[in-house]
Amino acid sequence: MLTGIDQRAAAIYAPIQARLNRVEELLRSLDDQAIPDLHALLDHALSSGGKRIRPAITLLASDFYPHDDEKPIIMSVAIELLHLATLIHDDTVDNSNLRRGKATVSNRWGKHIAVLFGDYVFAASATFVCDTENVRVIRRFSETIMELASGEIIEYFNCYNPQQARDLYQDRIYRKTASLFRTAAETGALLGNAPELQVQALSDYGYNMGMAFQIVDDLLDVQGDASELGKPVGNDLLQGVLTLPSIMLLERYPKDNPIEALFRERNQDGHLQQALDMINNSTIVRDCYTEIRGYCAKAAQALECLPDCDARDSLRNMTDYIWERTR
Amino acid sequence: MLTGIDQRAAAIYAPIQARLNRVEELLRSLDDQAIPDLHALLDHALSSGGKRIRPAITLLASDFYPHDDEKPIIMSVAIELLHLATLIHDDTVDNSNLRRGKATVSNRWGKHIAVLFGDYVFAASATFVCDTENVRVIRRFSETIMELASGEIIEYFNCYNPQQARDLYQDRIYRKTASLFRTAAETGALLGNAPELQVQALSDYGYNMGMAFQIVDDLLDVQGDASELGKPVGNDLLQGVLTLPSIMLLERYPKDNPIEALFRERNQDGHLQQALDMINNSTIVRDCYTEIRGYCAKAAQALECLPDCDARDSLRNMTDYIWERTR
Repeated sequence: MLTGIDQRAAAIYAPIQARLNRVEELLRSLDDQAIPDLHALLDHALSSGGKRIRPAITLLASDFYPHDDEKPIIMSVAIELLHLATLIHDDTVDNSNLRRGKATVSNRWGKHIAVLFGDYVFAASATFVCDTENVRVIRRFSETIMELASGEIIEYFNCYNPQQARDLYQDRIYRKTASLFRTAAETGALLGNAPELQVQALSDYGYNMGMAFQIVDDLLDVQGDASELGKPVGNDLLQGVLTLPSIMLLERYPKDNPIEALFRERNQDGHLQQALDMINNSTIVRDCYTEIRGYCAKAAQALECLPDCDARDSLRNMTDYIWERTR
Repeated sequence: MLTGIDQRAAAIYAPIQARLNRVEELLRSLDDQAIPDLHALLDHALSSGGKRIRPAITLLASDFYPHDDEKPIIMSVAIELLHLATLIHDDTVDNSNLRRGKATVSNRWGKHIAVLFGDYVFAASATFVCDTENVRVIRRFSETIMELASGEIIEYFNCYNPQQARDLYQDRIYRKTASLFRTAAETGALLGNAPELQVQALSDYGYNMGMAFQIVDDLLDVQGDASELGKPVGNDLLQGVLTLPSIMLLERYPKDNPIEALFRERNQDGHLQQALDMINNSTIVRDCYTEIRGYCAKAAQALECLPDCDARDSLRNMTDYIWERTR
C-alpha cells in the first residue's frame, strides 16, 4: 500500500510517468559491448534508488507548449547522467563508503575505476545533450558542468575553514546543486518551446528548488539517523564542510564554538556531538525551515505566469514534496 | 641557436604561430576570481612543456578555405584542454609522480584536488567547444570525450592481461589517442569551411597521425632513458599495459615470455629488464618503425586531395617530424 508521501509523489509524477520510464530505458542503454565490465558498474550506479527528481523537472518544464517529446526525454537522460557522474567523483574524493545505504562505486571497485567511470558517465551526458541539437541548451549544459566542477573545487579549498560567510555558502550551493536544478528546468522549457519570459520563469523555479533542496540536505545531515540516511550523521562537518545549520551556529556563538574546535582538531567526536546537539536544541532548525520555505515560495511564485495545466500543478506540488524528506 | 629539429618545428608552426599564441592566451584566461587557488593549478598544468601539436593540427586543418579565424582558435583551446584533462586524470589513477620530468598535479596537490581539477578542465573544454556554435563539431567533440573515457576503462580492465591481440590494441589506442588527433583535424576542417570530401581526408590524416604518435610513444617507453623521458623506462609494462613492442614480443615468444612472468608476479625488475632487452635486441623496434611509417604514409596520402598551400606543407612535414622524438 502506498503511504501518504508515496501517493503524493505518484500524483506529481503522473503526467510524465511514461516518459520517465523511457528515460530509465535510455539510461540503461549506455552499455558498450567493447567494455563487458561496464554493465555491472552502470547497473550499480543506476540502481542506487534516486528519485530522478531532476529529469522529472525537465519533463514537466517541457510540458506547457506543443513540442517534440523526444528531445526533453534525451535532455532528461543527460541531466541525470551529469548528476550521477558528479556523485561518483564526489564519493571518490570524499572517501565515502556509503550512499543511500549502498556501497559507493569507489568503495566497491576502487578509486581508480571510480575516476574513469565518472569520466565515462560525464562523457555520456555530453553526448546525449548533443542529440538535442539545440546550441543554447548545449551551452547551458556545459556551463553547468563548469559550475558543478568549480563548486566542488571551492568546497574543497574552503574545507575546515570556519570563516565562511553566508554569501559564500549561497554561491557554493548554487554551483554544487541549484545550477543543475536550474538547468533541468530551463532546458526543459527551451526544448518545450516555451516563450522567453516563461523560460526565465522556469529557470527561476529550478534555481529556487535547487537552493531549497540543498538546505533540506543540510538539515538531514544534522538531524537524520544514520540508518535512514545511509551515511553517518554530521558527515558534512566531519568532512570539514560548513552547511547552513553550522553557519548559523557559528553566527550565534562566534566565540568558543565546537565547530572551530572540530575543524582545528579534526575527527573529534565529542565536538561533533556537541555541535549537533546545539543545532538541534536551538531555533536553528526552525530558521533553516524558514529559509527553505522562502525558496519554495519563490519557486511556486515563478510558476504563476505559466499556463494552468497538469505540469504546473505537479511542479507546484513538488515545492511541498521537497520537504517531506525532513519530516 | 636552433637545432635542426627545432628549425623544422619552427617551419611547421610558422603559418599559424600568431594564432597559436592566441590559443595560449585563451588557455591562460581560464582563471576564476572565485577560486584563488586555481591560478597555481592552471599555471602548473599549462607549463608542462607540451608542444601543442593537437591545436596546431586544428589550426592547420582550418587553413585551406576562407573562414572566420576565431572559431578554429576556440576549437584549438577546447582540444588542448580536453587533452590536459585526460592527462591529469590518467596521472591520478596511474599514481604517476612525474610527467615530462615535472611533478604531476596529483603528486603535488593530492589525488582529491587532481580529480576535481581534471573535472574543471574537462568542463572548460566543453564550454569552449560550445562557442564554435557548430552542432556537428560539438557532437564530434563529445563523442571523442566518450572514446577517451572508454579507452581508459578498457585499458584498465585489460591491465596485467598478456592475452591481448593486435586488433584490441588498435581499438584501444584509437580511443585513447587517435580519436583526439582525428577530431583535432576534422573539426579544424569543418570550421575552416572545407568541402565534405576534404573534411574526410583531414579526418583520415588525424586518425593516422594519432596512431603513429601513440606507437612512437610506445617505442619511447621501451627505448628512452629515464632522464629524457621524465618518467621510468618500461613504465607501461610496469603498469600492466601492453604496447605494440610488447605485443610483438608476446607474438614471437608465446611460451615462457618475461612479460607473462612480470604480469603474474608484478613489479619484478628482473623480468622487466629482460623484456626490454629482448625488445631492443630484436627486429621489434625496426618493425614498429615500419608500422609508424605506414601510418605516416597514409596520413601524407590523405593530404593529396587538398589544395597545395603552406598549411598542407606543414601538415605533410609534421608526418616526418612526429618521428624525431624517437631518434
